[in-house]
Amino acid sequence: MINQVYVNKALELLKKPIETRVEVTQTVEIEQIDGKVEIKPAADYRSLNLKKGNKVCLDFGNHQVGYINMKLGYKGSHPDAPVLLKLHFAENPIELFEDPEEYHGWVCSSWIEYEQIHVDVVPSELKLPRRYAFRYLQIEVIDISSKFDLCIEDVICTAVSGADDNKLIPFNTENKQDKRLDEIACRTLHNCMQVVFEDGPKRDRRLWIGDLRIQALTNYMTYQNNDMVLACIYLLAGLTQEDGRVGACLFLNPEPEVDDTQMYDYSLFFVNILWDYYENTGDIETLKELWPTALRQIELAKENLNRDMIVEDSEELGWCFLDWNLNLNKQAGAQGVLLYATSAAIKISQALDDVMNEESLAAFYCEIRDAANDKLWDKELKCYVSGKNKQVSMASQVWMILGEAITGEDAYKLLKRVKENPQAQGMVTPYMYHNYVDAFIKAGSIGVALEELREYWGAMADLGADTFWELYNPANPYESPYGGTIVNSYCHAWSCAPAYFLRKYS
Amino acid sequence: MINQVYVNKALELLKKPIETRVEVTQTVEIEQIDGKVEIKPAADYRSLNLKKGNKVCLDFGNHQVGYINMKLGYKGSHPDAPVLLKLHFAENPIELFEDPEEYHGWVCSSWIEYEQIHVDVVPSELKLPRRYAFRYLQIEVIDISSKFDLCIEDVICTAVSGADDNKLIPFNTENKQDKRLDEIACRTLHNCMQVVFEDGPKRDRRLWIGDLRIQALTNYMTYQNNDMVLACIYLLAGLTQEDGRVGACLFLNPEPEVDDTQMYDYSLFFVNILWDYYENTGDIETLKELWPTALRQIELAKENLNRDMIVEDSEELGWCFLDWNLNLNKQAGAQGVLLYATSAAIKISQALDDVMNEESLAAFYCEIRDAANDKLWDKELKCYVSGKNKQVSMASQVWMILGEAITGEDAYKLLKRVKENPQAQGMVTPYMYHNYVDAFIKAGSIGVALEELREYWGAMADLGADTFWELYNPANPYESPYGGTIVNSYCHAWSCAPAYFLRKYS
Repeated sequence: MINQVYVNKALELLKKPIETRVEVTQTVEIEQIDGKVEIKPAADYRSLNLKKGNKVCLDFGNHQVGYINMKLGYKGSHPDAPVLLKLHFAENPIELFEDPEEYHGWVCSSWIEYEQIHVDVVPSELKLPRRYAFRYLQIEVIDISSKFDLCIEDVICTAVSGADDNKLIPFNTENKQDKRLDEIACRTLHNCMQVVFEDGPKRDRRLWIGDLRIQALTNYMTYQNNDMVLACIYLLAGLTQEDGRVGACLFLNPEPEVDDTQMYDYSLFFVNILWDYYENTGDIETLKELWPTALRQIELAKENLNRDMIVEDSEELGWCFLDWNLNLNKQAGAQGVLLYATSAAIKISQALDDVMNEESLAAFYCEIRDAANDKLWDKELKCYVSGKNKQVSMASQVWMILGEAITGEDAYKLLKRVKENPQAQGMVTPYMYHNYVDAFIKAGSIGVALEELREYWGAMADLGADTFWELYNPANPYESPYGGTIVNSYCHAWSCAPAYFLRKYS
Repeated sequence: MINQVYVNKALELLKKPIETRVEVTQTVEIEQIDGKVEIKPAADYRSLNLKKGNKVCLDFGNHQVGYINMKLGYKGSHPDAPVLLKLHFAENPIELFEDPEEYHGWVCSSWIEYEQIHVDVVPSELKLPRRYAFRYLQIEVIDISSKFDLCIEDVICTAVSGADDNKLIPFNTENKQDKRLDEIACRTLHNCMQVVFEDGPKRDRRLWIGDLRIQALTNYMTYQNNDMVLACIYLLAGLTQEDGRVGACLFLNPEPEVDDTQMYDYSLFFVNILWDYYENTGDIETLKELWPTALRQIELAKENLNRDMIVEDSEELGWCFLDWNLNLNKQAGAQGVLLYATSAAIKISQALDDVMNEESLAAFYCEIRDAANDKLWDKELKCYVSGKNKQVSMASQVWMILGEAITGEDAYKLLKRVKENPQAQGMVTPYMYHNYVDAFIKAGSIGVALEELREYWGAMADLGADTFWELYNPANPYESPYGGTIVNSYCHAWSCAPAYFLRKYS
């Protein structure tokens, strides 16, 4: 279903990203010694005469999203054959130790940022047409005529972002770790802000609602490009799936189009994103215009409730994301998200003086909250359980707290209790950790929340992260559920939590 | 040494090649059964839904030189990841059975016409920036998201050539083989005529004098783009090496520049090319202007004569091409080429009424001819021998005949005698075969010459050649001196002999 009025509003708000010229900071040599990556300065790339098999690795000083221009020259006889180059871009240097052609995991290998390029004319200026996300660029001369050597005279990155560095609100703190975590988080958000908010500039480069909610919240505290948030909201509202369901994500190219992926939690987040936008901007017109779209998501979500007013178990429900933990039962978490979204819907109805809806939503909220506490609370285990096997997970508790099924000291104790429970399904993404931190805050424990944040995100920073990662498992930092870190996304929007929480609560 | 006046004259004559739209003739399946390539029609590429690992092979009906445009669509969900394609272009279907990444021969593998391309947006139109020489294009889907299939909706080749098909002089013959050989030869020349005469549109794509001499002769009988010949002559004369030596080849990009390769025979051919041009056009102004350049080549060639007025032996001489037979001693052949060029120089001096030079050149010619017959003729073997080991080769006899050291019936018998000599070094390229056929004609044996031509070039035609090859050894048709047919050039200018000889002599 396309609402062209909404889509046009969005398109008018979209802007070409801002371009910044970035030079190579240093030429480096990267080695892996006993599994540990070591980066050493090397001779400047401009001074090298490259022969067949030679490699050079360029460090752009920080995570970049952009386009590469190379000026190529030669030493020796006039070039008499094309030069075949392999370019391998890496967000994290660990990626350079995996062979793109040996990757056989389930994520499409076309996401790996490497190219084989024939350069027909040297000297020449090479303008790569694709956008890359990287800090390091390794250039390997796969083949070259023996009559000349290749000289890379200059490599420039034209970095792009929809975030204006000049508008970044300063974050003043004496705490060096907090300062650093905020910097990395801002860079993460900055590089995910392009024409729209993308989940990751390497992969998938798409507007996902789950990421947008977090990005928008962080944006209000940092770059304040509220037009980009508004454009994304109108795109999601203008390009819905059947029955007016907001899709889990959408594509901009070649034409804006919603994906066919449905996610129970993601559709509901539209309500929260709209409310957060209004809270941060006061834009009542948009709130009014899109209120029916938001309300529709609650209506659709009701269809998945059973007679007990509990969201159907995982098998019937379809996809509800919550986290990348494949063992996770989603029932209780989904119930929590429904509470969370309904709570935001009530606030919208109040702001709009929509008394009719306010009343029915409030009644509905109480019904599903009470159902949750009646049917999903395990008195013996003293926590929420999920699904027919009564699974205990951190995700279930977190969303019940964010949905305010349980509050205050009880909520805090619940988190602590489940944290100590080795049987409980844990968390695997910074996305879930974000909600976990938020749950502590909701439970009134700001101090604990920030300590949890500093520990989890601090560990990525200690591992040298320039931007925060899509995935981080403290027990196995370079784990990839995709069968190779080479397809991991090391700059991922849903990980930008520190800039939001530290600025808001520290 | 740059003569900018000459270079400018050349640049003014250079034209953008003519573009022709070529569609796919059929989709094919190519198999190799017991070493033999079999081509079968397959389902039309437009009807296929391509998944990971699928391949499709397009046949453009004839050898093409040009640029590829592809229209890509999809079936299934909206594309959610780039598509990684491998494109492999083949002049000869045999190339498709070699893996580009497994080629480790001495010719730079960057000449292999294959690409790995990421397509970020589907549907889209893909315009490949590079020029390819091919009849077949194999497209392989290396990776694609499982959410959609790729549909190749249209593939168009924009073929380019500096030869105008409308200006091709008809060749009328009842002989079907001759007709076919002429067609293939014309296509060979056609596809090697681009901005300048190239040796091969796949590899090396450069103006080489040795090829130019043959191309120009064939051009006068076929497409008659004499401006292109003139441009090439001025480029060679305008961009000489030290001492005014005409280089063996030159480059057009990024700026016209002579290569540093020196070849004894190739520099001398400038004289013959200039004379042939004048003979075919009557352009006396150019003959006059470039006579000093031509004369200079004879002067430089004299520096390699020993006290006996014989060209130095191979080790001292430097590179004299003659043929790709690495065992060939070049001394006698070089002497023959010097005679051949001096003979043309005498004709130029006569046409220009340059009596002084005519006299000295004629005297020089007699001196080196007599020296050849005195020092290089082996009375016992009844043939010319070359080098300190008195090597017998066909190349030596051919060039002595073309240089008229021996003529008429004696020349004919000499060719026959050496042909029967199993000890004699043979010929390995159509380039040498061209001169061999020419030697029979010079010896007055047109009939034998054309039979030799029909046998050698006819065998390539029987093997399915659309254009004549750089290399053809009747004993081993798919031999490659480069360590893989994948770098062979199957459309090579120096092989266009049939269109010249058949039109002139049949």
